[in-house]
Amino acid sequence: MTLRVTFLGTSGAVPTTARSLPGIMINRDGDRLLFDCGEGTQRQMMQFHTGFDIADIFITHTHGDHIYGLPGLIETLDFNDRSAPLTIHVPPGTASDLRSFIFAASGRPGFSVEIKPVTPGTTVREAPEYEVRAFRVDHDVTAVGYALIEDERKGRFDRERAEELGVPVGPKFSQLHDGKAVELEDGRVIEPEQVVGPPRPGRRVVYTGDTRPSDRTVEVASEADLLIHDGTFADDCTERAVETGHSTARQAGRVAALADARRLALVHISSRYAGPLDAQRREAREPFDGEVLTPEDGDTIEVPFP
Amino acid sequence: MTLRVTFLGTSGAVPTTARSLPGIMINRDGDRLLFDCGEGTQRQMMQFHTGFDIADIFITHTHGDHIYGLPGLIETLDFNDRSAPLTIHVPPGTASDLRSFIFAASGRPGFSVEIKPVTPGTTVREAPEYEVRAFRVDHDVTAVGYALIEDERKGRFDRERAEELGVPVGPKFSQLHDGKAVELEDGRVIEPEQVVGPPRPGRRVVYTGDTRPSDRTVEVASEADLLIHDGTFADDCTERAVETGHSTARQAGRVAALADARRLALVHISSRYAGPLDAQRREAREPFDGEVLTPEDGDTIEVPFP
Repeated sequence: MTLRVTFLGTSGAVPTTARSLPGIMINRDGDRLLFDCGEGTQRQMMQFHTGFDIADIFITHTHGDHIYGLPGLIETLDFNDRSAPLTIHVPPGTASDLRSFIFAASGRPGFSVEIKPVTPGTTVREAPEYEVRAFRVDHDVTAVGYALIEDERKGRFDRERAEELGVPVGPKFSQLHDGKAVELEDGRVIEPEQVVGPPRPGRRVVYTGDTRPSDRTVEVASEADLLIHDGTFADDCTERAVETGHSTARQAGRVAALADARRLALVHISSRYAGPLDAQRREAREPFDGEVLTPEDGDTIEVPFP
Repeated sequence: MTLRVTFLGTSGAVPTTARSLPGIMINRDGDRLLFDCGEGTQRQMMQFHTGFDIADIFITHTHGDHIYGLPGLIETLDFNDRSAPLTIHVPPGTASDLRSFIFAASGRPGFSVEIKPVTPGTTVREAPEYEVRAFRVDHDVTAVGYALIEDERKGRFDRERAEELGVPVGPKFSQLHDGKAVELEDGRVIEPEQVVGPPRPGRRVVYTGDTRPSDRTVEVASEADLLIHDGTFADDCTERAVETGHSTARQAGRVAALADARRLALVHISSRYAGPLDAQRREAREPFDGEVLTPEDGDTIEVPFP
């Protein structure tokens, strides 16, 4: 079951030659979920081969650097003869302005576009095997983050034990693994609990968008397999992070540590930082034992099961 | 006197991995003039080192592919603490919608932005040594092209003749070249016509934006040093060019031939064409004897004096 994250744009409000404006594509077993859509996102999608068959778009807040790619992306989807409806999830209170912006200069496309305000703390996309939840973050405008949370997986099937119990290899194995009791030819009934372990947790990927460090992120990102956190600044700009509603790498590391996340990826990198971001990785690692990533545009990571 | 054209984006309505959306920067002796501003233009400006100190922006029409880069560019200029006012020239009847679009998702920047409808057939930017004129083109919405027209240059100064006439080397040379008569020590008066040739034409660069072939373009591009023309299609899509208000390479070549232009550059290349555009160059050259260019993004050409 693929769970693949492609960092389309990792810059902050101003792009650089190396970093395009914010956008993240998550491909969950073929469902393409786009989080934020800064200027240039459609072309990054082409460059990095994510595919254009987007299921939903999730906008964290309506600052320009997170939305200016929407009108062009929608026009390109229309040129490509998309017919499937598109849902764009947006923070509460922003749908009407965003609709005006997206369609200010274009006719309506040949597919329906629903711009749907989220209620933070609730599920905004319900899919077989996973859901996407919105949660309030702490920026200088109404802003939300999103968590992709997979359902629990079936417990591990103990094939050896099943054979010992005399279950014949074949469909009865699947029935047991699916939680159904089976009757053997000799009349004995085998309960699934005898051969199937406890359900195992699914994976969890959390994207904060722009935010100061927040307790809500700590809660939502509890044991997350990947926390993609605002890492606009390094220690040298701690005050500026507070003022502008962003985080330093160290603060993001602290959130990841409190949440007991497995991996932390820092995004929304201020244009003042060039090169490999060694300071940010070092600073995030002081509070946080897990892996710290500072993705470049186009980096793609697979999220393994824990 | 630099006259340098940088092709920032050469795609049609849909970008490709090779071609970004429409935008052309002309640097005329330090005056940076941006023509159209498709999504991604600001980043192309960074990649291709054109500088951000833009004098004016000239929009040919308000289809998304020509304007979706404006809000982000203006925000970046604001982040860079621009204070100089910015004028955006737009086709008649589009100023109010364009203003709504540009500022839909952002506060007003710290510099003034004037969105100024042009009157086709008139000068829209008057500068020392050159002007920019707008002219009506033939697209499926109100659309204009722009011509950068340099003033006539002084005639050639005949230094040998001046020395024969006894004019002393020094300031009197400049006075004569500037059109002023000078009196020599022996009382003789030398008229500028005696040592200065007839005024020489300046250079002319014409950009059509999106258009079918048009007589107005032929007029405005008369003896142009560079005609940058809609070349969306090749011969295989001649009907589609008519339907959609665009041109084929051959049609652009015919316009360039009728105008007796020196060079033709084809832009707004449909995403259906990849690679080096050999067909387009061949087709444009059939009617047109001059040089045909099919610029790639980032190509920069100097326009020499004729």
